Amino acid sequence: MLRTLLSRFACLMAVCLLAGSSSADEGMWLFNDLPRDYLESTYGFRPSDEWAEHLMKSCVRFNVGGSASFVSSTGLVLTNHHVGSDTLFKLSTKERNILEQGYLARTHDEELKAPDLELNQLISIQDVTAEVQGAVKEEMSPEDALAARRKVIAGIESAATEESGLRSDVVTLYGGARYHLYQYKKFTDVRLVWAPETAAAFFGGDADNFEYPRYCLDACIFRVYEDDKPARIQHFLKWSEDGAGEGELTFVAGNPGRTSRIFTTDALAYQRDTRLPALLNLLRRLEVLLQQYGLEGTEQTRRARDDLFGIQNSRKARLGMLAGLQDPRVFDSKREAEKELLSKVQADPELRPLAEAWTTIRETTERRAEVAKEGVRIRSQLFTIAHTLVQMAEEDQKPSGDRLPRFAEAGRASLLQQLYSDAPIYPDLDQVLLADSIAYTLEKSGGDDPLSQQILDGTSPSDRAAALIQNTSLLDVAERKKLAEGGAEAIAASEDPLIQFARLVDPEIRRVDKLNDQLDELETQAYARIAEARFAIEGTSTYPDATFTLRLAFGPVKGYELAGETIPAVTRMSGAFEHEANHEGQADYDLPESWHRAKDSLNGNTPLNFVTTADIIGGNSGSPVVNQDLELVGLIFDGNIQSLTADFVYSDTVARAVSVHSSAIREALQVIYGAGHIVDELGK
Amino acid sequence: MLRTLLSRFACLMAVCLLAGSSSADEGMWLFNDLPRDYLESTYGFRPSDEWAEHLMKSCVRFNVGGSASFVSSTGLVLTNHHVGSDTLFKLSTKERNILEQGYLARTHDEELKAPDLELNQLISIQDVTAEVQGAVKEEMSPEDALAARRKVIAGIESAATEESGLRSDVVTLYGGARYHLYQYKKFTDVRLVWAPETAAAFFGGDADNFEYPRYCLDACIFRVYEDDKPARIQHFLKWSEDGAGEGELTFVAGNPGRTSRIFTTDALAYQRDTRLPALLNLLRRLEVLLQQYGLEGTEQTRRARDDLFGIQNSRKARLGMLAGLQDPRVFDSKREAEKELLSKVQADPELRPLAEAWTTIRETTERRAEVAKEGVRIRSQLFTIAHTLVQMAEEDQKPSGDRLPRFAEAGRASLLQQLYSDAPIYPDLDQVLLADSIAYTLEKSGGDDPLSQQILDGTSPSDRAAALIQNTSLLDVAERKKLAEGGAEAIAASEDPLIQFARLVDPEIRRVDKLNDQLDELETQAYARIAEARFAIEGTSTYPDATFTLRLAFGPVKGYELAGETIPAVTRMSGAFEHEANHEGQADYDLPESWHRAKDSLNGNTPLNFVTTADIIGGNSGSPVVNQDLELVGLIFDGNIQSLTADFVYSDTVARAVSVHSSAIREALQVIYGAGHIVDELGK
Repeated sequence: MLRTLLSRFACLMAVCLLAGSSSADEGMWLFNDLPRDYLESTYGFRPSDEWAEHLMKSCVRFNVGGSASFVSSTGLVLTNHHVGSDTLFKLSTKERNILEQGYLARTHDEELKAPDLELNQLISIQDVTAEVQGAVKEEMSPEDALAARRKVIAGIESAATEESGLRSDVVTLYGGARYHLYQYKKFTDVRLVWAPETAAAFFGGDADNFEYPRYCLDACIFRVYEDDKPARIQHFLKWSEDGAGEGELTFVAGNPGRTSRIFTTDALAYQRDTRLPALLNLLRRLEVLLQQYGLEGTEQTRRARDDLFGIQNSRKARLGMLAGLQDPRVFDSKREAEKELLSKVQADPELRPLAEAWTTIRETTERRAEVAKEGVRIRSQLFTIAHTLVQMAEEDQKPSGDRLPRFAEAGRASLLQQLYSDAPIYPDLDQVLLADSIAYTLEKSGGDDPLSQQILDGTSPSDRAAALIQNTSLLDVAERKKLAEGGAEAIAASEDPLIQFARLVDPEIRRVDKLNDQLDELETQAYARIAEARFAIEGTSTYPDATFTLRLAFGPVKGYELAGETIPAVTRMSGAFEHEANHEGQADYDLPESWHRAKDSLNGNTPLNFVTTADIIGGNSGSPVVNQDLELVGLIFDGNIQSLTADFVYSDTVARAVSVHSSAIREALQVIYGAGHIVDELGK
Repeated sequence: MLRTLLSRFACLMAVCLLAGSSSADEGMWLFNDLPRDYLESTYGFRPSDEWAEHLMKSCVRFNVGGSASFVSSTGLVLTNHHVGSDTLFKLSTKERNILEQGYLARTHDEELKAPDLELNQLISIQDVTAEVQGAVKEEMSPEDALAARRKVIAGIESAATEESGLRSDVVTLYGGARYHLYQYKKFTDVRLVWAPETAAAFFGGDADNFEYPRYCLDACIFRVYEDDKPARIQHFLKWSEDGAGEGELTFVAGNPGRTSRIFTTDALAYQRDTRLPALLNLLRRLEVLLQQYGLEGTEQTRRARDDLFGIQNSRKARLGMLAGLQDPRVFDSKREAEKELLSKVQADPELRPLAEAWTTIRETTERRAEVAKEGVRIRSQLFTIAHTLVQMAEEDQKPSGDRLPRFAEAGRASLLQQLYSDAPIYPDLDQVLLADSIAYTLEKSGGDDPLSQQILDGTSPSDRAAALIQNTSLLDVAERKKLAEGGAEAIAASEDPLIQFARLVDPEIRRVDKLNDQLDELETQAYARIAEARFAIEGTSTYPDATFTLRLAFGPVKGYELAGETIPAVTRMSGAFEHEANHEGQADYDLPESWHRAKDSLNGNTPLNFVTTADIIGGNSGSPVVNQDLELVGLIFDGNIQSLTADFVYSDTVARAVSVHSSAIREALQVIYGAGHIVDELGK
C-alpha cells in the first residue's frame, strides 16, 4: 500500500457519507453492488450484468499503486505515465533515460520487459463475511481475535488459490462489517510499448500538479505477454471515435486507494492534529534529502527523480487534505453529521450499545499518538530486502495461517517477484536514505536509547550507513536467493552486515507493528459496529471506503465556477503551447522538442484534458473513463486542488476528476510520436 | 538574533572547552582579554594595546547578522555577498535583480542607499558585572531576578547612551558570570558600491555550501556616509600586497553569533533529541514552502530567493550540528569531560554547592521541551510590523527599565529604523508565509483549541491570511508612523485587521515568552555558577561562548588530510573554471558571463579561497582575516562541513575556516568587473 500512499493523488468528491444518504454523483461503488436504481432514475441508464462484467474484466490493477485497462485484443494496457513511472525508472540507465525522454517500440522485439511488474485482472467477487466473522468469538481478546481472523483469511485465500490458480485476496469492507474474496488473473510478463517524455506527461511540473485547467499527456502503454507472446485478451475497451463531449455521463473503473469517510471526528482530529503534520514533516524531510542528493550531479538527479516525484506529489496531496481538515467549515459539517447519526443511535434501544464504538475510536487514536513516537522506520531498498529475508526465515517456521499476512502461502509468488527483482538499486542513494533513517530513529528514540546505541555501533549515522551498504552482498540477486532458500539457519549464520542489522532491529519493529495491529483490530471491530449502525439507519445501499480494489464511479463532463470565473470542462492541445508561452523561462513549462517539431501538423483543436464529477482518489490514477457503450473516452490522472479533501468528504461544487482525453492520446501517438502502428491496434 | 541564526554559518574548531584547558588555536577571545601569553609562547607574537585597538575599530558589525571591516579612509566596508544579500535583495526589483546580477557604482552618485542597514563600530568595552549582579539578590524569585536584572541593564544602557551618544549594549558573558558594556558608533547611511553576481559569490550553490576545496567570490563592498558625504575613517585595514601564504599566522576579528560550549550534556541531549530535530522540521517546512511559491513564476522565484537561501543555509548547518551530536565519539567526549569537571567540583567543599547547577539545567531542559509545544509563532513581515506596534504601544506605558528589552529607550532609534523601513514587502509572499504560520499554529495547538478557532475566525488558514494581508494598511510606512505615534489609543481604535489580529495573539505570545524568559533566567544563574566552578578549576584565562560581539580568533593557513587525500590550503582562480567544467549541465556551477569574458585576461594563478584553523562560527561571515601587521589578507565566508560541530566543540584536525583571498578580490575588481577605481581606494 505504500506505493498507493505515495503515488499520485487524483481526487474529487460532493457531500459527506456520514452526512446521511449519499447524494449527487458520490460513491466508489462495488462491482457486485452497483447503484443501478440511482443511475436509472437520474440518468436513465441501468447497467446490465454483462456491462458490469465486461468493464470489470477490461480493467487491470498495477500492484505498485495504480489503475489501467486493456485497450486491445493484443494485450495493450493503457495507464498513466506516472503510474508506469516506477517501471520507466527501473528500465532507465545513465545512458538511456526512458523516464525523462520517453520510449517507443517499433516492433514486438523492441518492447522492454518490466523487471518486477505484476498486473491483476479481477475475475470474481464472493462474499465470505459469515466465514470470517464466524471465526471471531465475542469473548476473544483483541490479540486473539486478530490471530483468528488472520488465520481464517489465510485459509480462505490458500484454498481459493489452490482451487483456481488465481491470486486470491480477502478484502475488508465497511471497516470490517463485510469481507469479500477477490480473485485475480495475474500478468507478470509486462512490456513497455510507448511512453512520452516527462515534459509532456507532467507538463507544468509540481506547480501545475493538482491544478486545472491542465495540459498533460499523462499516459503510457504496456503490453502483457503470456508464454512469451502477446496475450490474447477477450475483455478490452473499444476506442471512442470522438471521446466524451460536455455534459455526457461517463464512468470510471479503477482502484481508489484509501478513503476515511467512515472516520469519527475523533479519528479525523487525530489526522488533523497529529498524524498528517508528522507525515508531512517526514515527507518534507525526504524531499529535501533527495533534492540535496540530486545536487551532486545530473546522474544523481536522475537516480532520485522517481522517488522525489512520488514524495512531492504525496506532500502536495497531504497538505491539501490537512488544509481541508483545518477548515472549520469542512470539519464542523462532519461533526454535525456525526452528532445527528449518534443521536439516532442513542434513540434506538437496539442500536444504543453500538455507540460505545465511538468511545473505542477515541481511545485508540490517543494510543496511536503514543505508539507513533516509538519504533524503527527505515527507508532503504537494501535494508527492506534484508529485513524481508530475516522475517521470512522466522515466519516460514509457522503454519501459513499463523504468519504475518505478507508471508502467507497464497502471496508467496508475488513476494518473491519483488524480492528477486533485478531492477537497479543505487547503493550511493540507498546509503543516503539509510543514514537519514538511522538519524531519524535516533531523533525519535533519543541518542541515549540503548537500541539507538546498538544501531550506531560507536559511529555516526552516516558512517554506520556507509559500513552497512558498502559491505552487504544483497545487491546480488543470487545472494538473496541463497539466503531465502537457506531459511532460518542461513540467516542465523549470515555475516552480511545488513542481515545482522535487520536482525538487530527486527524485534523492535515487530513490537511496534504488534501494537499497531492491536489498535487496528480494535478499530476494525469498532468501525464494523459503526457501519452496522449506519446500515440500520441509512440502509445498505451505500458504498464502503476505498480499499485499493475495483470500484465504479460516475459523473458528467462538467466545468465549474471559481471566484467568478468559468473554468471550462475541456482544454485543447493548442492550449499547451499557449501555456508554455505564458511561462517562459520556467523549466517545468518547456514542452518537449517532439511537440515543437509536430506543432504545425497537429490538430490544435483536439481535446487534451477534461474534468468530470466522478468520485475518485489516489489509486484511481490510470483508470479508464468510458461512456455508456463502454468505449474509452479518457484516462484519469489527477484531481483538482479543490478535490483534495475527498479522503474525508465528497463535493461536486468545484471539486473535479481530471482526465487525459482519448482523442489527445490518439492524436499524439499518430502525429507527435509517429506511432501509427499502435493507433491501429487501439480498441481492436 | 534571528538573522544571525538564519544567516550563513561559517564554522571551524579543535578540542572542547569543557574538556579542560583550551588547546591549539581554539578560542573566540574578548578584545579586552586577549590570549597574549599563548600567542607569544606559541607564535612569538605579542599583540600590543594599540594593535588590538586598531583592529577592533577597523571592524564593523552588520546588525542583520554578520561581520565586516573598513578597508579605506573613504568609508569602504568589505563584507560577504551573503552578508550584504539582505540589502542587495531589498535594492532589487523585478526589472533590476541586483542580488543575482551584481552591481557596480562608477561614481559616488551611483552608490545605492540601503533602506534599513545599521553598521556598528565597537568603540569601548567596560566591565559592569558588579553593578548588574548587585541588583539581583539571593532570595529573589527567578521572575523578580529577571526583572531586576533587566531594569539595571536598561538603566546602564540608557545612561551610557545619554552620556556618549553611542549605541550601548550590556552583554552577558560566560553564561551570566560576567557583564560587559559595549559601546558602538552607529552608521545608518550605508550605500552599495559593488557586488558580484550570485553565480560568482555562491558558485556551486547549496551543493558546495560548507564544502572545500571551494571557488567562491563571496564578497561585496559598501560605503558608509555621514552628512550625505563619504565618512572619513581613521581606523581601517591596509590591503596586503600578496595576501597570506601557506603556514602564515592569521587573525580573524568578527562577531561569532552563538556557541554552546558551556552547555551541560543534558542541555546538549536536549538539542540533539528535541530542539534541533524540531527546528529542522520547521526549516524544511519553510524551504519547501518557498520553493513551491517560487514555482509560480520567475518573479516569485526572485522574491523568495534571499529568504530561501538563508533557510537552506541554516538547514545545512543545523543538520551538521545534529550529526555531530548524534555521533557517540563527539558526545561521549563531552560526557567524559563533564564527568571529570564534576568530580573535581564534588571533591572541593567550597565548590560542591555549585554542582546543583547541573541539576537545574536538567530540569530547565525538561521544561523547555514542554514549553516548545506551546505558543503562536508567526513568520510574516507585515504581522511582525503589526505586532511590534501593538507591543510598543503597551510597553511604552511603562518606565524604560520595566519594558521588554527591545522597547527600552536606548534601542529606540534602531527599532524605528526597522519599523519605518521602506524596503519592499511582497504581500503575495507574505500571505503565503502567514497562511503557513496559521496552519502551523493549528498543528501545534490542535484545531479545536479555542485560540486556534479565534485565529481562524470561521475560515481556513489560507482564506484567513488572504483577508488579513489584503486588507491591512501597514504596507504604507506613513500608516505605521501614525499608529506608532498614536500609541495605545490609536492601537485600541485601529480597525486594521492585522493590528486586531496581533492584539488577539499577543497575550499568548507574551505568556510563552515569559515562560521562556523564566527558563532563561534559571539557566543564566546556573551557567554563571558552572562558569565560576570552571574559573576556580581551570583558571580565568579562557574565553566565553559567542554572543554576536567582537572576538579575536587566530590560526595558520593550513591544508588537511581527508580519507587519505591531501586537501590544499589554497585554491586558484583557474580552478573555478575547472570546477565549472567538471559539473557541466548543473545550473549552480555556471560561472557568470563576466568571468568567461575576462578569462583570458585573468591571472589564473591568483589565490581564490584558502583555509585556516581559526575558531569561528556563524556571525563571523564577513570577518576580515589579517596578518600580524594588520594588513587584510582574506575575508571569512564559510567553514567546511567537518567544522559544523563547532557550536559545541572545536577541532583543528580537519575542521577549517574558509576565506576569500584578498588577492582574488583585487584581481576580480580590476580584471573582471572593471572596477579599478575601487582598487585604487583599497587600504588608502
